[in-house]
Amino acid sequence: MSSTFVAILMGSDSDLPVMQSTIDVLKTFEIDCEVRVRSAHRTPDAAKAYVKDAEERGCKVFICAAGLAAHLAGAVAGMTTRPVIGVPVDNGPLQGHDALLSTVMMPGGIPVATVAIGKAGAKNAGYLAAQILGVADQSIADKVKAERAANAVALLAKDEAMQAKLG
Amino acid sequence: MSSTFVAILMGSDSDLPVMQSTIDVLKTFEIDCEVRVRSAHRTPDAAKAYVKDAEERGCKVFICAAGLAAHLAGAVAGMTTRPVIGVPVDNGPLQGHDALLSTVMMPGGIPVATVAIGKAGAKNAGYLAAQILGVADQSIADKVKAERAANAVALLAKDEAMQAKLG
Amino acid sequence: MSSTFVAILMGSDSDLPVMQSTIDVLKTFEIDCEVRVRSAHRTPDAAKAYVKDAEERGCKVFICAAGLAAHLAGAVAGMTTRPVIGVPVDNGPLQGHDALLSTVMMPGGIPVATVAIGKAGAKNAGYLAAQILGVADQSIADKVKAERAANAVALLAKDEAMQAKLG
Amino acid sequence: MSSTFVAILMGSDSDLPVMQSTIDVLKTFEIDCEVRVRSAHRTPDAAKAYVKDAEERGCKVFICAAGLAAHLAGAVAGMTTRPVIGVPVDNGPLQGHDALLSTVMMPGGIPVATVAIGKAGAKNAGYLAAQILGVADQSIADKVKAERAANAVALLAKDEAMQAKLG
Amino acid sequence: MSSTFVAILMGSDSDLPVMQSTIDVLKTFEIDCEVRVRSAHRTPDAAKAYVKDAEERGCKVFICAAGLAAHLAGAVAGMTTRPVIGVPVDNGPLQGHDALLSTVMMPGGIPVATVAIGKAGAKNAGYLAAQILGVADQSIADKVKAERAANAVALLAKDEAMQAKLG
Amino acid sequence: MSSTFVAILMGSDSDLPVMQSTIDVLKTFEIDCEVRVRSAHRTPDAAKAYVKDAEERGCKVFICAAGLAAHLAGAVAGMTTRPVIGVPVDNGPLQGHDALLSTVMMPGGIPVATVAIGKAGAKNAGYLAAQILGVADQSIADKVKAERAANAVALLAKDEAMQAKLG
Amino acid sequence: MSSTFVAILMGSDSDLPVMQSTIDVLKTFEIDCEVRVRSAHRTPDAAKAYVKDAEERGCKVFICAAGLAAHLAGAVAGMTTRPVIGVPVDNGPLQGHDALLSTVMMPGGIPVATVAIGKAGAKNAGYLAAQILGVADQSIADKVKAERAANAVALLAKDEAMQAKLG
Amino acid sequence: MSSTFVAILMGSDSDLPVMQSTIDVLKTFEIDCEVRVRSAHRTPDAAKAYVKDAEERGCKVFICAAGLAAHLAGAVAGMTTRPVIGVPVDNGPLQGHDALLSTVMMPGGIPVATVAIGKAGAKNAGYLAAQILGVADQSIADKVKAERAANAVALLAKDEAMQAKLG
Repeated sequence: MSSTFVAILMGSDSDLPVMQSTIDVLKTFEIDCEVRVRSAHRTPDAAKAYVKDAEERGCKVFICAAGLAAHLAGAVAGMTTRPVIGVPVDNGPLQGHDALLSTVMMPGGIPVATVAIGKAGAKNAGYLAAQILGVADQSIADKVKAERAANAVALLAKDEAMQAKLG
Repeated sequence: MSSTFVAILMGSDSDLPVMQSTIDVLKTFEIDCEVRVRSAHRTPDAAKAYVKDAEERGCKVFICAAGLAAHLAGAVAGMTTRPVIGVPVDNGPLQGHDALLSTVMMPGGIPVATVAIGKAGAKNAGYLAAQILGVADQSIADKVKAERAANAVALLAKDEAMQAKLG
Repeated sequence: MSSTFVAILMGSDSDLPVMQSTIDVLKTFEIDCEVRVRSAHRTPDAAKAYVKDAEERGCKVFICAAGLAAHLAGAVAGMTTRPVIGVPVDNGPLQGHDALLSTVMMPGGIPVATVAIGKAGAKNAGYLAAQILGVADQSIADKVKAERAANAVALLAKDEAMQAKLG
Repeated sequence: MSSTFVAILMGSDSDLPVMQSTIDVLKTFEIDCEVRVRSAHRTPDAAKAYVKDAEERGCKVFICAAGLAAHLAGAVAGMTTRPVIGVPVDNGPLQGHDALLSTVMMPGGIPVATVAIGKAGAKNAGYLAAQILGVADQSIADKVKAERAANAVALLAKDEAMQAKLG
Repeated sequence: MSSTFVAILMGSDSDLPVMQSTIDVLKTFEIDCEVRVRSAHRTPDAAKAYVKDAEERGCKVFICAAGLAAHLAGAVAGMTTRPVIGVPVDNGPLQGHDALLSTVMMPGGIPVATVAIGKAGAKNAGYLAAQILGVADQSIADKVKAERAANAVALLAKDEAMQAKLG
Repeated sequence: MSSTFVAILMGSDSDLPVMQSTIDVLKTFEIDCEVRVRSAHRTPDAAKAYVKDAEERGCKVFICAAGLAAHLAGAVAGMTTRPVIGVPVDNGPLQGHDALLSTVMMPGGIPVATVAIGKAGAKNAGYLAAQILGVADQSIADKVKAERAANAVALLAKDEAMQAKLG
Repeated sequence: MSSTFVAILMGSDSDLPVMQSTIDVLKTFEIDCEVRVRSAHRTPDAAKAYVKDAEERGCKVFICAAGLAAHLAGAVAGMTTRPVIGVPVDNGPLQGHDALLSTVMMPGGIPVATVAIGKAGAKNAGYLAAQILGVADQSIADKVKAERAANAVALLAKDEAMQAKLG
Repeated sequence: MSSTFVAILMGSDSDLPVMQSTIDVLKTFEIDCEVRVRSAHRTPDAAKAYVKDAEERGCKVFICAAGLAAHLAGAVAGMTTRPVIGVPVDNGPLQGHDALLSTVMMPGGIPVATVAIGKAGAKNAGYLAAQILGVADQSIADKVKAERAANAVALLAKDEAMQAKLG
């Protein structure tokens, strides 16, 4: 299954700083990914062509990030039956509340696996993609489990550092 | 310009009761319209095929109604450069607030002319389409002006009826 | 992989009518599921015991439904590294807006794949679980693809029925 | 139809930086425009006098920008039967959410074609006005189509630049 | 000052059931009132003519009720320098939240004295008008004070009735 | 009626920068005012003592400013039957949305004349107080009318300046 | 400490059906309570007199319920230094969102222990009062612990009933 | 009762600056406290172990601070029957509105005593804990009463300083 990969699509290249977190998390789990700028509205044909081609080449999970009336994840979800993860971006005056509702409130039949607005969501999109791939690939599942345990240790270390500081 | 018409698209046939107001207003102005169920997510190809064909056959304005993460108007706006009017439908737990934000907060370059949530918006979609067609067709513009004047008279008649009742 | 199944957890048995849609969708795809009432707050130990045991017995995806300050999905996500899908239920005065934010705004490291509030989300939780399992099991992926196509045909049939009615 | 033009009204001269985007887009399409400060509340008579006069002199579309309880677009919509586009401005503590609702939730009979809050909306007001004029004037419609295509090319160029950067 | 009166304007005759509470409260204080249906959008000229005439005939306070993008109070506030009280009506899908923001968020220089959404606000519009008139007319001020005291007694009587019931 | 004055109460001295606008507007109309820090929660007795005393000394209108769960205006409205104007202050994480609802949604019988959140509202509290006093004192009413006219001229002057700039 | 009791105050007798849940929970724990109708605005003096007297007679916790601009809990919190629990009631068009913010967003120094809007909150006010009293009175703490355990058993019994039904 | 103490838990060490206010208030009342970083999701077992142990060692009140989908307070409330105070932290794009709803909207049986979002809430968590402990320990109750009185004096001193400044 060497060609398995995750595709990260964003509606604008200005979303890259937020989505770098997703790329970093996937790298942690040694999961290949492709990153593309495609807009549901400005380049609908190119978006569709990419999604179809990516699915054929082995893309197993799509991650889509967009702000405002964030349609990208939903549009991609209508083009593929692979799981689609939506990251609402907080780049407008409503601070991502619009992007959240536009991403999560999908009608029956076309789900988008929505994560939190902004940075926390971008990170979690990477974790969720790894968990999904882990259903089929035990080595990825093991890495996720190990990272989770390490993360707990790290948090408790921060607690100890805080004790020292407060103490 | 005998083939000029307005296309009304809705994401589900359950939106028809709300959108009947649009049809009725267009009929008042003797404007032809086509009504179709097409979903941005469930039938994206059929939606695109219809929009392309309709535009060629003389469709000058598209009106799109959808609820929840209402992407239909935005998706159609990405398929045509004709004006697209979006009607957010209040058919979910958030009462159309989600549909409003999903319809109106479009990114730069792909506008959706958004009207009010629900019945008031459905009615206004018809009026707005007539006003847009009236820019090119003075006979429609005249009908809109006449209806506006009649509407004012009707409101004042309601006032008189109320005076009688209160009096 | 005969023991693969999906676990559906709900915070209260009053959530069953909404979650019946999830059960029905999974049945369509011939995916086994277990349905349990477990509360993150009232039975945290029983919830944890179930999740640990289910994961060992082959549960690949958890679906969690809760209303108000809906913590169940997030709590389960902290107990397992399998994908967790969260369904916000609209059973309180804020109509699920509270449940949506409590479910989707998870901090980095512990994702919940959130779907829409209420019935639409319950349905989509089933579809999303099938898509996730389909990454590992091509026969499920094929069923999802087939159902998607049938769904598009059904929508267009509704369009034709509407034409007849309007016509 | 040499006198055709678009009128841009704003409730305060402090809205000019946002509305410059509208002016720039209209310039791209070689559409004439007039820009005026008129307040629905502070100068209702001057607003009305301008709208009546502009309509007579060939104004085909009005674009109105205001913040807070943004009444300007609705007030102008009550003075003319030409299409009125409303731009909600995010200049107060509620970040334009108040201006959006005050602009879009118009009662039946008096539509305002509402676009997004702030900069994105200001840009789209220009595009929408061009699309509306394009219904009557094919040369404008052609320019909009061409710009749309160029915009898609530009987005894909940004994608390539990002590939180089990531690569 | 025999001609002193309060004018109650509403955007639609469907607002009368809510505004009956205002009329009833004013009657309690023996304050004369006129009730008119006038729309800021559908009958702007008739609204203005009425306001100018009413002010000349002795109207000292205007009370304006409207729902959705409720502009009536703000529009009237731009036509007169008498105090204008705004009652946001909850007759649409957003339950008056839109009407509240459209009424209260007025820009500097043109205040609207806004009261609560719906029935409670309609009642309070009457009380507030009486308090404002009471600044100039001590007999009205005395009646308001007396009613306030009676109201407190009535509430404590309800408490006693509840004690009996609980007891 | 030489002792007529307006009392401005604020929940914290940190509200003074916002409320300076109210003081300035009242000064424009040569209306006397007293400014006091009194908290509905931290100094309820001192608040009540001040209100009772002020009313006896000739205070005709109270203006109350507070943020967060802004109870001050409502509390003062329960202590006096003089008109009370409430200014919601935007000094917390919810940007005054909490203060707005806490101020405006008063139950029947105890009105608060609520103005906009923050600076615009602070300004309008001054205008509204002047309009209320103007019901009893024609010289104040005349000043308000004159200022309104001057304000309209000033806005149109800004329009001319903008024309020159755009030019 | 035989006179220890909890005082339940509500702004209106119409809040009793919601607050009956609080009374029932306190009864479960054999905690005495007094129930009174007192309004922060309509009977501020009677409210204060009751609170002072109740505190002297042994009231250890106050529970206050109110809707709309719900000031009661905050007002009582300013009259006593005993813990005050606030229950936001959903009896208006904004469904308790206003009451929640008016109750919970208290400024520093005067806390209100806020629970959920409506029925769930009314129930929890009773549980929280029992937990607070349990800090001083081990027998109450023991009852709370026992009820918690019984509650968990009851939930799991519901799960078994559901298994039988799904079965 | 020498071992009585308050436990302050936070979901991340980045919450310390906000929660320092809680620590400071408790110090004012000479109440011992322990401060720990524990996450409901990342370290659920360590959180539970700490809560069980703390309760046994004499912890009488738990204070939990978290942002986003803030589950910590609710999770701790499910682990103990001691009173749990929740502080919603405003560290994400929705400015704590998500944390507030996730903390306060707890289902019946498991209360969280919720205070305001951010700094004001952090301060009030300290006051509320002191008030709760004061039910059992009169010396703490006396200190709270004294501080309240001093606080009122301080506010009135600020008023005098403002008078001098405005002077």
